[in-house]
Amino acid sequence: MKPILEVAASFGIADKYLELYGRYKSKLDLNLLNDLRDRPDGKLVLVTAMNPTPAGEGKTLTTIGLAQALNALGEPTIAALREPSLGPCLGMKGGATGGGKAQILPSEDINLHFTGDMHAITSAHNLLAAMIDNHIFQGNALQIDTGRIVWKRTMDMNDRSLRQIVVGLGDGNGRVHDSGFIITAASEVMAVLCLSEDADDLKRRLGRMVVAYNMSGEAVTALQIGSVDAMTVLLKEAIKPNLVQTAEGTPAIVHGGPFANIAHGCSSVIGTKTALKLAKIVVTEAGFGADLGAEKFFDIKCCQAGLTPDAAVLVVTVKALKYNGGVPKAELDKPNPAALEAGLANMKRHLANIGKFGVPVMVAINHFAGDAQDEVRLVIEACRRLGVRAEQSDVWAKGSEGGLEMAQTLRDILREEPSRYVPLYPEELDLRAKIETIVREIYRGAGIKLSAKAEARIQEFERFGFGRLPVCMAKTPYSFSDQAALLGAPENFVVQVRDITLSAGAGFIVAHTGNIVTMPGLPKSPAAERIHLDENGEVAGLL
Amino acid sequence: MKPILEVAASFGIADKYLELYGRYKSKLDLNLLNDLRDRPDGKLVLVTAMNPTPAGEGKTLTTIGLAQALNALGEPTIAALREPSLGPCLGMKGGATGGGKAQILPSEDINLHFTGDMHAITSAHNLLAAMIDNHIFQGNALQIDTGRIVWKRTMDMNDRSLRQIVVGLGDGNGRVHDSGFIITAASEVMAVLCLSEDADDLKRRLGRMVVAYNMSGEAVTALQIGSVDAMTVLLKEAIKPNLVQTAEGTPAIVHGGPFANIAHGCSSVIGTKTALKLAKIVVTEAGFGADLGAEKFFDIKCCQAGLTPDAAVLVVTVKALKYNGGVPKAELDKPNPAALEAGLANMKRHLANIGKFGVPVMVAINHFAGDAQDEVRLVIEACRRLGVRAEQSDVWAKGSEGGLEMAQTLRDILREEPSRYVPLYPEELDLRAKIETIVREIYRGAGIKLSAKAEARIQEFERFGFGRLPVCMAKTPYSFSDQAALLGAPENFVVQVRDITLSAGAGFIVAHTGNIVTMPGLPKSPAAERIHLDENGEVAGLL
Repeated sequence: MKPILEVAASFGIADKYLELYGRYKSKLDLNLLNDLRDRPDGKLVLVTAMNPTPAGEGKTLTTIGLAQALNALGEPTIAALREPSLGPCLGMKGGATGGGKAQILPSEDINLHFTGDMHAITSAHNLLAAMIDNHIFQGNALQIDTGRIVWKRTMDMNDRSLRQIVVGLGDGNGRVHDSGFIITAASEVMAVLCLSEDADDLKRRLGRMVVAYNMSGEAVTALQIGSVDAMTVLLKEAIKPNLVQTAEGTPAIVHGGPFANIAHGCSSVIGTKTALKLAKIVVTEAGFGADLGAEKFFDIKCCQAGLTPDAAVLVVTVKALKYNGGVPKAELDKPNPAALEAGLANMKRHLANIGKFGVPVMVAINHFAGDAQDEVRLVIEACRRLGVRAEQSDVWAKGSEGGLEMAQTLRDILREEPSRYVPLYPEELDLRAKIETIVREIYRGAGIKLSAKAEARIQEFERFGFGRLPVCMAKTPYSFSDQAALLGAPENFVVQVRDITLSAGAGFIVAHTGNIVTMPGLPKSPAAERIHLDENGEVAGLL
Repeated sequence: MKPILEVAASFGIADKYLELYGRYKSKLDLNLLNDLRDRPDGKLVLVTAMNPTPAGEGKTLTTIGLAQALNALGEPTIAALREPSLGPCLGMKGGATGGGKAQILPSEDINLHFTGDMHAITSAHNLLAAMIDNHIFQGNALQIDTGRIVWKRTMDMNDRSLRQIVVGLGDGNGRVHDSGFIITAASEVMAVLCLSEDADDLKRRLGRMVVAYNMSGEAVTALQIGSVDAMTVLLKEAIKPNLVQTAEGTPAIVHGGPFANIAHGCSSVIGTKTALKLAKIVVTEAGFGADLGAEKFFDIKCCQAGLTPDAAVLVVTVKALKYNGGVPKAELDKPNPAALEAGLANMKRHLANIGKFGVPVMVAINHFAGDAQDEVRLVIEACRRLGVRAEQSDVWAKGSEGGLEMAQTLRDILREEPSRYVPLYPEELDLRAKIETIVREIYRGAGIKLSAKAEARIQEFERFGFGRLPVCMAKTPYSFSDQAALLGAPENFVVQVRDITLSAGAGFIVAHTGNIVTMPGLPKSPAAERIHLDENGEVAGLL
């Protein structure tokens, strides 16, 4: 690792903008973005993927490796990534920092407490929760209906026992009511922080968050609770982007990590905008597959922040294609061209979808040791027939060297194919029509069915004036449909919308399909049982 | 503020031992203490106080000002302090970083997230809680009795609604059982971290913590849950002492902040030992008044860590003495020599108590604007009659200059009066006798009365082999007795011991008298309503 001061200097960031956390991590002062506001932006590239499978597709890995390879080609590039959540690292997910020769460093620090952003978000969220209950305890001047407190508590831990709890028991401990914990990545404070333009915008958004309803059914906001200034203070460091480096010394801005189902799943707007001022190309990622991640990146993040994506890279793997062609996980190592051919339908649909946003796209075939070259060729050939360029990527084993063809092709696309980016739907469309548009145009379902509760919520939110907000779909990532088992390119399904919730601070309406878990549990044998300090005092067992 | 690198260099700390958090905060690598192990220790001075009153006594302030004044006299001195808890700062306590010209800087940072120690402790604590419930959910191989899970959750927030909760409700969310949250400062992980000698000791202590009992009534430890290695990883930075500076550039090691009732209320052993290797004099503090703080400092922290305290400074104020002499808070500004005289009984008893530990003591009269000089003279005169040196301290208004007499007197004591430190009781004494000894010798009560539950617990803990542990008294800080309203120097009271709990990792037994709140609530108008970022982006309203 190079000292982070050196990594920063290589992209022209003066020392005065750095706030060091040890030798290899730094916060970037918000004045940096402000001072660079007249500089032209670099090109913005989204790395997305086909639907995720148990084999792992390597989207973060490819994002990091691609940024390294572009730098190796002489194109000053920064990776803009999401920061990992601690809870899942201690559960079963492993780290979220790439791997092999395409990872961000220091990976253990980044996966653990990093620069404390998750903890600050947790504190701000829970301060608001405590102040709501205290407001009720101290006389409830706002006439909050304790049956309709929608603001839960949060913790960056996988703890299923906290999903549904009753609080306020005992003498003098406030009013008894239902509550629960969500994981920090699912907190609206996280989504708000990631979509904020600056500290003032953060404060305004926090104030708009709806936390409860009063006895007359009117929304009660965080602003009314009086917590917003203190929350802004608690978040004053967390809102600053974090600078680290890849294994090859490429700068990486790792900032914000919202859920990709009940939230938009993208790293921070401030981080992306800062990177665009510093680099010629910025490579970023979005959660899950393109049906969720890319759609939300285009329709929520880019739309709200006024960003124009210049290209997209769709990550596929031979294994994931075969899995989508019906091969069970245990048999993915065996060649199976017929299944691969069938699974290509999944890739093709994602490619066509990205085309609907007017964004040029290429395919990156993330290579696993043992992949049959015949199968890789099949994928390239299928892409050629679609008029889409495809390259094998081998950045895990070889770093930038394994990503040079991919980087060259991307550079060609950026030079040759102008982006005609346009969001999928206009904000004027009503909420129901927005959901239907996403389901028909992106998922390719036959339609939607709203529960009575969802219908009522839509009417309520449109009456409250939230009808122009974009819709954030909370759906299984494993299928285009709302049923995880429907792999490939399913058709004729109807998406069931069970509930609609409001994230007024983040600025979107969430459509809940299926049962979305916002507080994970630990598996039978959690990763925490294997994580330890080795004989040299180094963290082992985390990745 | 000087750059922290410069502050460190002034005490001979090489750059390689520093891990910077911005320009003004640093962690100290644990190798520093290890590499200095052959160097002789400096002198250790405890700053303690008479019983606290609503007027505020200024113990932390005096500790900081005294360290500054000793440096001004040419004695290289470091202050070793507790780190503030976030929850109370957002509630009503205000910061815990001194004030005026005797404060530690950057005070806002220190009062907010600082270097993340509190958050790391919170994470480690809650990982263990999640793993206990997950163990039960996954089959309960240890046969844990869900009615006797003694490990709660923790949060660094004042949230009374979380004191008593029911968890695991709903389908698939684990076993329903009673639980609750305590504030992070009350977590046994905090006490463990503060009493650990090094990372190995931390791990051993975490492993010994008793978290539940099984169906046969046997103790279940954190080691059996399998969380200890991962907790140690989560705490690997938190265990490193934090270096900051006072308003005059004096180094301050600010590390660890355990509760002073259900825990021992002292900053970390590692921080104290590191300071003793670096400075000629180390000034440290302990929570609450000397009946709780000094007793625990001598009988728990010094005893466990093999530290020898060389002197003690008892902080008193004219206001606190009058309050203990019966004057209500609103009238403390008026001269009242008779009440002052009566209140001196409180000071005298603390002085005599400190003498029982064989530790030389002086009195510091922390000066408030408006204190009558006649009254200050009365205090000095009373001390003179007891053969105790007393000095007025004016460090809030004047910094080191206001503490020079105090520092000179302390230096004389350190040169002239050797410490004959001895703990109050031998470890062989049984638990009941230990409690009785503290009550009779320090509180001067007539005796103790144990509830049936407390009796049963003592028998249980002695049967489990914990009878040699010291006793940590959880008592109101406002009175020598267990009744907050008994000010001055009450006699003939009987201390009611309601419950006895075990902190096997920290290495003490807690005797609960009265109703000790381990999760504070927010007041009607919390400080969080006033904390904000001012027009320059600086934190305002916190102190």
